[in-house]
Amino acid sequence: MRRFLVVGHRANTNGDFRLDDLPGTGGRMDIIAMSVSSALFLSHGLRKDVEVWLVLLGGVPRTVKIIGPEARYLFPDERNIAGMIRTNLLRYREGKRGTPGIYVSDMDFREAVESASADSVLFYLEEDGENIRFAEIRENSTFILGDSTDLTPEEEEIVEKIGARRISLGRKSLHTYQAIAITNYELDRREESGTGGP
Amino acid sequence: MRRFLVVGHRANTNGDFRLDDLPGTGGRMDIIAMSVSSALFLSHGLRKDVEVWLVLLGGVPRTVKIIGPEARYLFPDERNIAGMIRTNLLRYREGKRGTPGIYVSDMDFREAVESASADSVLFYLEEDGENIRFAEIRENSTFILGDSTDLTPEEEEIVEKIGARRISLGRKSLHTYQAIAITNYELDRREESGTGGP
Repeated sequence: MRRFLVVGHRANTNGDFRLDDLPGTGGRMDIIAMSVSSALFLSHGLRKDVEVWLVLLGGVPRTVKIIGPEARYLFPDERNIAGMIRTNLLRYREGKRGTPGIYVSDMDFREAVESASADSVLFYLEEDGENIRFAEIRENSTFILGDSTDLTPEEEEIVEKIGARRISLGRKSLHTYQAIAITNYELDRREESGTGGP
Repeated sequence: MRRFLVVGHRANTNGDFRLDDLPGTGGRMDIIAMSVSSALFLSHGLRKDVEVWLVLLGGVPRTVKIIGPEARYLFPDERNIAGMIRTNLLRYREGKRGTPGIYVSDMDFREAVESASADSVLFYLEEDGENIRFAEIRENSTFILGDSTDLTPEEEEIVEKIGARRISLGRKSLHTYQAIAITNYELDRREESGTGGP
Protein backbone atom coordinates (compact mmCIF):
# COMPACT_ATOMS: atom_id res chain seq x y z
CA MET A 1 0.00 0.00 0.00
CA ARG A 2 1.17 3.50 -0.85
CA ARG A 3 -0.10 6.42 1.13
CA PHE A 4 0.37 10.13 0.48
CA LEU A 5 -0.08 12.42 3.48
CA VAL A 6 -0.53 15.97 2.24
CA VAL A 7 -0.62 18.95 4.58
CA GLY A 8 -2.88 21.83 3.54
CA HIS A 9 -1.67 24.58 5.83
CA ARG A 10 -4.36 27.08 4.88
CA ALA A 11 -6.92 24.66 3.44
CA ASN A 12 -10.49 25.51 4.47
CA THR A 13 -11.85 22.88 6.87
CA ASN A 14 -15.33 24.33 7.25
CA GLY A 15 -16.50 23.28 3.82
CA ASP A 16 -17.77 26.78 3.05
CA PHE A 17 -15.37 27.55 0.22
CA ARG A 18 -16.38 28.33 -3.35
CA LEU A 19 -15.64 25.88 -6.13
CA ASP A 20 -14.93 28.78 -8.49
CA ASP A 21 -12.30 30.15 -6.12
CA LEU A 22 -10.33 27.18 -4.81
CA PRO A 23 -7.02 29.05 -4.45
CA GLY A 24 -8.61 31.92 -2.46
CA THR A 25 -11.64 30.86 -0.41
CA GLY A 26 -10.45 27.25 -0.41
CA GLY A 27 -6.99 28.12 0.97
CA ARG A 28 -5.17 26.52 -1.98
CA MET A 29 -7.71 23.73 -2.21
CA ASP A 30 -6.65 23.57 -5.88
CA ILE A 31 -3.32 22.11 -4.78
CA ILE A 32 -5.03 19.63 -2.48
CA ALA A 33 -7.46 18.50 -5.19
CA MET A 34 -4.75 18.06 -7.81
CA SER A 35 -2.70 16.07 -5.32
CA VAL A 36 -5.59 13.66 -4.90
CA SER A 37 -5.98 13.34 -8.66
CA SER A 38 -2.29 12.72 -9.11
CA ALA A 39 -2.10 10.14 -6.34
CA LEU A 40 -5.19 8.07 -7.10
CA PHE A 41 -5.86 8.27 -10.82
CA LEU A 42 -4.48 6.45 -13.79
CA SER A 43 -5.71 7.37 -17.24
CA HIS A 44 -8.62 4.95 -17.13
CA GLY A 45 -9.56 4.67 -13.48
CA LEU A 46 -8.37 4.57 -9.91
CA ARG A 47 -5.20 2.93 -8.66
CA LYS A 48 -5.96 -0.10 -6.52
CA ASP A 49 -3.25 0.27 -3.90
CA VAL A 50 -3.09 3.97 -3.06
CA GLU A 51 -4.67 6.15 -0.41
CA VAL A 52 -4.40 9.84 0.38
CA TRP A 53 -4.62 11.51 3.76
CA LEU A 54 -5.30 15.22 3.60
CA VAL A 55 -4.36 17.01 6.79
CA LEU A 56 -6.25 20.30 6.47
CA LEU A 57 -5.25 23.04 8.86
CA GLY A 58 -6.97 26.24 7.73
CA GLY A 59 -9.46 26.13 10.60
CA VAL A 60 -10.26 23.39 13.11
CA PRO A 61 -7.92 20.57 12.00
CA ARG A 62 -9.49 17.87 9.88
CA THR A 63 -7.97 14.83 8.25
CA VAL A 64 -9.74 13.59 5.14
CA LYS A 65 -8.75 10.07 4.13
CA ILE A 66 -9.52 8.99 0.59
CA ILE A 67 -9.09 5.29 0.02
CA GLY A 68 -8.52 4.66 -3.70
CA PRO A 69 -10.07 1.20 -4.04
CA GLU A 70 -13.20 2.20 -2.07
CA ALA A 71 -13.87 5.65 -3.55
CA ARG A 72 -16.90 6.27 -5.71
CA TYR A 73 -18.19 9.26 -7.74
CA LEU A 74 -14.65 10.62 -8.00
CA PHE A 75 -13.31 12.09 -11.24
CA PRO A 76 -9.77 13.32 -11.89
CA ASP A 77 -10.52 17.01 -12.40
CA GLU A 78 -9.77 19.60 -9.76
CA ARG A 79 -13.32 20.87 -9.41
CA ASN A 80 -14.89 17.45 -8.94
CA ILE A 81 -12.39 16.39 -6.29
CA ALA A 82 -12.64 19.72 -4.42
CA GLY A 83 -16.43 19.33 -4.49
CA MET A 84 -16.17 15.84 -2.97
CA ILE A 85 -13.87 17.15 -0.22
CA ARG A 86 -16.31 19.97 0.49
CA THR A 87 -19.31 17.65 0.61
CA ASN A 88 -17.55 15.38 3.08
CA LEU A 89 -16.37 18.26 5.30
CA LEU A 90 -19.94 19.56 5.43
CA ARG A 91 -21.42 16.14 6.17
CA TYR A 92 -18.91 15.60 8.95
CA ARG A 93 -19.88 18.90 10.57
CA GLU A 94 -23.52 17.88 10.39
CA GLY A 95 -22.79 14.46 11.87
CA LYS A 96 -23.70 12.66 8.65
CA ARG A 97 -21.96 9.76 6.96
CA GLY A 98 -19.46 10.56 4.23
CA THR A 99 -19.41 9.30 0.66
CA PRO A 100 -17.91 5.84 -0.03
CA GLY A 101 -14.17 5.65 0.53
CA ILE A 102 -13.86 9.10 2.12
CA TYR A 103 -13.45 9.42 5.88
CA VAL A 104 -13.21 12.68 7.82
CA SER A 105 -11.83 12.94 11.35
CA ASP A 106 -10.50 15.53 13.81
CA MET A 107 -6.90 14.32 13.59
CA ASP A 108 -4.26 17.03 13.51
CA PHE A 109 -0.83 16.69 11.93
CA ARG A 110 0.83 14.95 14.87
CA GLU A 111 -2.01 12.47 15.25
CA ALA A 112 -2.13 11.75 11.52
CA VAL A 113 1.63 11.13 11.36
CA GLU A 114 1.53 8.86 14.41
CA SER A 115 -1.39 6.95 12.99
CA ALA A 116 0.38 6.52 9.64
CA SER A 117 3.52 5.27 11.37
CA ALA A 118 1.56 2.44 12.98
CA ASP A 119 1.21 0.51 9.72
CA SER A 120 3.79 1.96 7.31
CA VAL A 121 7.32 3.29 6.89
CA LEU A 122 7.37 7.09 6.70
CA PHE A 123 9.18 9.16 4.10
CA TYR A 124 9.34 12.92 4.00
CA LEU A 125 9.75 14.35 0.50
CA GLU A 126 12.29 17.11 0.67
CA GLU A 127 14.73 18.61 -1.81
CA ASP A 128 17.74 17.90 0.42
CA GLY A 129 16.87 14.27 1.09
CA GLU A 130 18.39 11.07 -0.29
CA ASN A 131 17.81 10.52 -4.01
CA ILE A 132 14.63 8.45 -4.27
CA ARG A 133 16.28 6.25 -6.90
CA PHE A 134 18.81 4.98 -4.37
CA ALA A 135 16.44 4.71 -1.43
CA GLU A 136 15.11 1.40 -0.25
CA ILE A 137 11.35 1.58 -0.30
CA ARG A 138 9.34 -1.51 0.51
CA GLU A 139 5.61 -2.10 0.75
CA ASN A 140 3.41 -0.02 3.03
CA SER A 141 4.98 3.38 2.78
CA THR A 142 3.63 6.82 3.64
CA PHE A 143 5.00 9.82 1.79
CA ILE A 144 4.59 13.14 3.60
CA LEU A 145 4.37 16.36 1.57
CA GLY A 146 3.53 20.00 2.21
CA ASP A 147 1.31 22.10 -0.03
CA SER A 148 2.55 25.40 -1.45
CA THR A 149 4.54 25.96 1.74
CA ASP A 150 7.00 23.52 3.27
CA LEU A 151 6.37 21.88 6.59
CA THR A 152 6.70 24.28 9.52
CA PRO A 153 9.62 23.80 11.97
CA GLU A 154 7.15 22.24 14.45
CA GLU A 155 5.87 19.80 11.83
CA GLU A 156 9.43 18.98 10.76
CA GLU A 157 10.26 18.17 14.35
CA ILE A 158 7.33 15.77 14.58
CA VAL A 159 8.43 14.08 11.39
CA GLU A 160 12.06 13.90 12.54
CA LYS A 161 11.22 12.49 15.96
CA ILE A 162 9.09 9.72 14.55
CA GLY A 163 11.98 8.72 12.32
CA ALA A 164 10.69 9.57 8.84
CA ARG A 165 13.39 9.31 6.18
CA ARG A 166 14.04 12.31 3.96
CA ILE A 167 13.97 11.47 0.28
CA SER A 168 14.37 13.76 -2.69
CA LEU A 169 13.10 14.00 -6.25
CA GLY A 170 15.87 16.37 -7.29
CA ARG A 171 16.78 19.97 -6.74
CA LYS A 172 13.82 21.59 -8.49
CA SER A 173 11.03 22.84 -6.24
CA LEU A 174 7.95 21.04 -7.56
CA HIS A 175 4.24 21.38 -7.05
CA THR A 176 2.84 18.79 -4.67
CA TYR A 177 0.80 17.12 -7.40
CA GLN A 178 3.91 16.86 -9.59
CA ALA A 179 5.94 15.34 -6.75
CA ILE A 180 3.19 12.78 -6.18
CA ALA A 181 3.01 11.83 -9.88
CA ILE A 182 6.78 11.34 -9.88
CA THR A 183 6.78 9.27 -6.68
CA ASN A 184 4.10 6.99 -8.12
CA TYR A 185 6.20 6.71 -11.27
CA GLU A 186 9.40 5.82 -9.41
CA LEU A 187 7.56 3.15 -7.45
CA ASP A 188 5.81 1.81 -10.56
CA ARG A 189 9.21 1.50 -12.25
CA ARG A 190 10.50 -0.58 -9.34
CA GLU A 191 7.47 -2.83 -9.42
CA GLU A 192 7.82 -3.31 -13.14
CA SER A 193 11.47 -4.23 -12.80
CA GLY A 194 10.56 -6.58 -9.94
CA THR A 195 12.79 -4.98 -7.31
CA GLY A 196 12.10 -3.17 -4.08
CA GLY A 197 15.38 -1.33 -4.50
CA PRO A 198 16.53 1.26 -7.03
CA MET B 1 14.17 24.24 -25.14
CA ARG B 2 11.54 21.66 -24.22
CA ARG B 3 8.22 21.68 -25.96
CA PHE B 4 5.11 19.66 -25.17
CA LEU B 5 2.64 19.25 -28.00
CA VAL B 6 -0.69 18.09 -26.57
CA VAL B 7 -3.61 17.05 -28.76
CA GLY B 8 -7.06 17.86 -27.42
CA HIS B 9 -9.24 15.72 -29.65
CA ARG B 10 -12.55 17.06 -28.38
CA ALA B 11 -11.32 20.32 -26.86
CA ASN B 12 -13.63 23.25 -27.59
CA THR B 13 -11.99 25.70 -30.01
CA ASN B 14 -14.79 28.28 -30.05
CA GLY B 15 -14.08 29.60 -26.61
CA ASP B 16 -17.71 29.24 -25.58
CA PHE B 17 -17.19 26.59 -22.90
CA ARG B 18 -18.08 27.01 -19.23
CA LEU B 19 -15.33 27.24 -16.61
CA ASP B 20 -17.49 25.25 -14.20
CA ASP B 21 -17.80 22.42 -16.71
CA LEU B 22 -14.39 21.96 -18.29
CA PRO B 23 -14.74 18.18 -18.80
CA GLY B 24 -18.15 18.50 -20.53
CA THR B 25 -18.61 21.78 -22.40
CA GLY B 26 -14.83 22.23 -22.64
CA GLY B 27 -14.30 18.80 -24.25
CA ARG B 28 -11.88 17.68 -21.53
CA MET B 29 -10.38 21.14 -21.24
CA ASP B 30 -9.51 20.08 -17.66
CA ILE B 31 -6.88 17.72 -19.08
CA ILE B 32 -5.52 20.43 -21.36
CA ALA B 33 -5.31 22.98 -18.53
CA MET B 34 -3.59 20.57 -16.15
CA SER B 35 -1.11 19.66 -18.87
CA VAL B 36 -0.16 23.32 -19.19
CA SER B 37 0.25 23.62 -15.43
CA SER B 38 2.38 20.53 -15.28
CA ALA B 39 4.59 21.57 -18.18
CA LEU B 40 5.24 25.20 -17.29
CA PHE B 41 5.06 25.54 -13.53
CA LEU B 42 7.51 24.91 -10.76
CA SER B 43 6.41 25.48 -7.19
CA HIS B 44 7.40 29.14 -7.19
CA GLY B 45 6.99 30.28 -10.78
CA LEU B 46 7.29 29.42 -14.42
CA ARG B 47 10.01 27.30 -15.99
CA LYS B 48 12.26 29.35 -18.21
CA ASP B 49 12.87 26.87 -21.00
CA VAL B 50 9.52 25.21 -21.68
CA GLU B 51 6.69 25.87 -24.09
CA VAL B 52 3.39 24.10 -24.72
CA TRP B 53 1.54 23.77 -27.99
CA LEU B 54 -2.09 22.80 -27.60
CA VAL B 55 -3.57 21.37 -30.76
CA LEU B 56 -7.30 21.68 -30.14
CA LEU B 57 -9.55 19.75 -32.46
CA GLY B 58 -13.10 19.90 -31.06
CA GLY B 59 -14.24 22.36 -33.75
CA VAL B 60 -12.27 24.35 -36.33
CA PRO B 61 -8.66 23.36 -35.52
CA ARG B 62 -6.70 25.81 -33.42
CA THR B 63 -3.20 25.63 -32.06
CA VAL B 64 -2.58 27.59 -28.87
CA LYS B 65 1.10 28.13 -28.12
CA ILE B 66 2.02 29.11 -24.57
CA ILE B 67 5.62 30.24 -24.21
CA GLY B 68 6.69 29.82 -20.58
CA PRO B 69 9.20 32.67 -20.29
CA GLU B 70 6.84 35.17 -21.97
CA ALA B 71 3.55 34.26 -20.29
CA ARG B 72 1.90 36.66 -17.86
CA TYR B 73 -1.19 36.45 -15.61
CA LEU B 74 -0.93 32.67 -15.56
CA PHE B 75 -1.45 30.66 -12.37
CA PRO B 76 -1.06 26.92 -11.91
CA ASP B 77 -4.68 26.01 -11.19
CA GLU B 78 -6.91 24.37 -13.75
CA ARG B 79 -9.57 27.08 -13.78
CA ASN B 80 -7.16 29.96 -14.28
CA ILE B 81 -5.38 28.28 -17.16
CA ALA B 82 -8.61 27.20 -18.84
CA GLY B 83 -9.83 30.79 -18.50
CA MET B 84 -6.69 32.08 -20.20
CA ILE B 85 -7.11 29.60 -23.06
CA ARG B 86 -10.75 30.65 -23.45
CA THR B 87 -9.89 34.35 -23.46
CA ASN B 88 -7.29 33.83 -26.15
CA LEU B 89 -9.57 31.66 -28.32
CA LEU B 90 -12.27 34.34 -28.12
CA ARG B 91 -9.82 37.16 -28.91
CA TYR B 92 -8.49 35.25 -31.88
CA ARG B 93 -12.01 34.82 -33.28
CA GLU B 94 -12.58 38.54 -32.88
CA GLY B 95 -9.29 39.39 -34.58
CA LYS B 96 -7.80 40.80 -31.38
CA ARG B 97 -4.32 40.37 -29.97
CA GLY B 98 -3.81 37.64 -27.38
CA THR B 99 -2.38 37.95 -23.89
CA PRO B 100 1.43 37.98 -23.45
CA GLY B 101 3.12 34.72 -24.32
CA ILE B 102 0.00 33.06 -25.76
CA TYR B 103 -0.39 32.74 -29.53
CA VAL B 104 -3.39 31.24 -31.32
CA SER B 105 -3.31 30.07 -34.93
CA ASP B 106 -5.29 27.90 -37.37
CA MET B 107 -2.68 25.14 -37.47
CA ASP B 108 -4.04 21.61 -37.46
CA PHE B 109 -2.20 18.56 -36.16
CA ARG B 110 -0.15 17.93 -39.30
CA GLU B 111 0.91 21.55 -39.58
CA ALA B 112 1.79 21.79 -35.89
CA VAL B 113 3.92 18.63 -36.04
CA GLU B 114 5.70 19.83 -39.19
CA SER B 115 6.33 23.21 -37.64
CA ALA B 116 7.71 21.62 -34.46
CA SER B 117 10.02 19.38 -36.48
CA ALA B 118 11.64 22.43 -38.06
CA ASP B 119 13.50 23.39 -34.89
CA SER B 120 13.42 20.33 -32.62
CA VAL B 121 13.72 16.56 -32.41
CA LEU B 122 10.32 14.90 -32.04
CA PHE B 123 9.38 12.27 -29.49
CA TYR B 124 6.05 10.54 -29.23
CA LEU B 125 5.20 9.39 -25.72
CA GLU B 126 3.73 5.95 -25.95
CA GLU B 127 3.57 2.99 -23.58
CA ASP B 128 5.29 0.66 -26.08
CA GLY B 129 8.17 3.01 -26.85
CA GLU B 130 11.81 2.90 -25.74
CA ASN B 131 12.34 3.49 -22.01
CA ILE B 132 12.92 7.23 -21.61
CA ARG B 133 15.81 6.49 -19.23
CA PHE B 134 17.80 4.88 -22.00
CA ALA B 135 16.84 7.28 -24.78
CA GLU B 136 19.20 9.93 -26.00
CA ILE B 137 17.49 13.27 -25.65
CA ARG B 138 19.38 16.44 -26.44
CA GLU B 139 18.36 20.06 -26.41
CA ASN B 140 15.38 21.32 -28.41
CA SER B 141 12.97 18.44 -28.13
CA THR B 142 9.24 18.26 -28.73
CA PHE B 143 7.22 15.65 -26.83
CA ILE B 144 3.90 14.72 -28.44
CA LEU B 145 1.05 13.46 -26.26
CA GLY B 146 -2.65 12.73 -26.66
CA ASP B 147 -5.31 13.77 -24.16
CA SER B 148 -7.68 11.17 -22.70
CA THR B 149 -7.61 9.31 -25.99
CA ASP B 150 -4.50 8.16 -27.82
CA LEU B 151 -3.51 9.59 -31.17
CA THR B 152 -5.76 8.43 -33.98
CA PRO B 153 -4.29 6.11 -36.66
CA GLU B 154 -4.10 9.12 -39.01
CA GLU B 155 -2.22 11.16 -36.41
CA GLU B 156 0.08 8.25 -35.67
CA GLU B 157 0.88 8.00 -39.36
CA ILE B 158 1.84 11.69 -39.48
CA VAL B 159 4.07 11.25 -36.45
CA GLU B 160 5.65 8.10 -37.89
CA LYS B 161 6.32 9.61 -41.29
CA ILE B 162 8.06 12.64 -39.87
CA GLY B 163 10.34 10.32 -37.91
CA ALA B 164 9.29 10.96 -34.30
CA ARG B 165 10.85 8.49 -31.88
CA ARG B 166 8.57 6.54 -29.57
CA ILE B 167 9.57 6.77 -25.95
CA SER B 168 7.87 5.30 -22.90
CA LEU B 169 7.41 6.17 -19.25
CA GLY B 170 6.49 2.62 -18.32
CA ARG B 171 3.56 0.32 -18.73
CA LYS B 172 0.98 2.23 -16.70
CA SER B 173 -1.47 4.34 -18.67
CA LEU B 174 -1.03 7.82 -17.20
CA HIS B 175 -2.91 11.06 -17.42
CA THR B 176 -1.33 13.54 -19.81
CA TYR B 177 -0.46 15.96 -17.01
CA GLN B 178 1.23 13.14 -15.07
CA ALA B 179 3.25 12.07 -18.13
CA ILE B 180 4.39 15.67 -18.61
CA ALA B 181 5.44 16.05 -14.96
CA ILE B 182 7.46 12.85 -15.27
CA THR B 183 9.09 13.86 -18.56
CA ASN B 184 10.15 17.18 -17.04
CA TYR B 185 11.52 15.25 -14.08
CA GLU B 186 13.50 12.80 -16.21
CA LEU B 187 15.02 15.70 -18.16
CA ASP B 188 15.75 17.68 -14.99
CA ARG B 189 17.57 14.65 -13.58
CA ARG B 190 19.78 14.51 -16.67
CA GLU B 191 20.55 18.18 -16.48
CA GLU B 192 21.42 17.90 -12.82
CA SER B 193 23.74 14.99 -13.51
CA GLY B 194 25.25 16.95 -16.41
CA THR B 195 24.55 14.39 -19.12
CA GLY B 196 22.38 14.38 -22.21
CA GLY B 197 22.14 10.62 -21.94
CA PRO B 198 20.43 8.36 -19.39
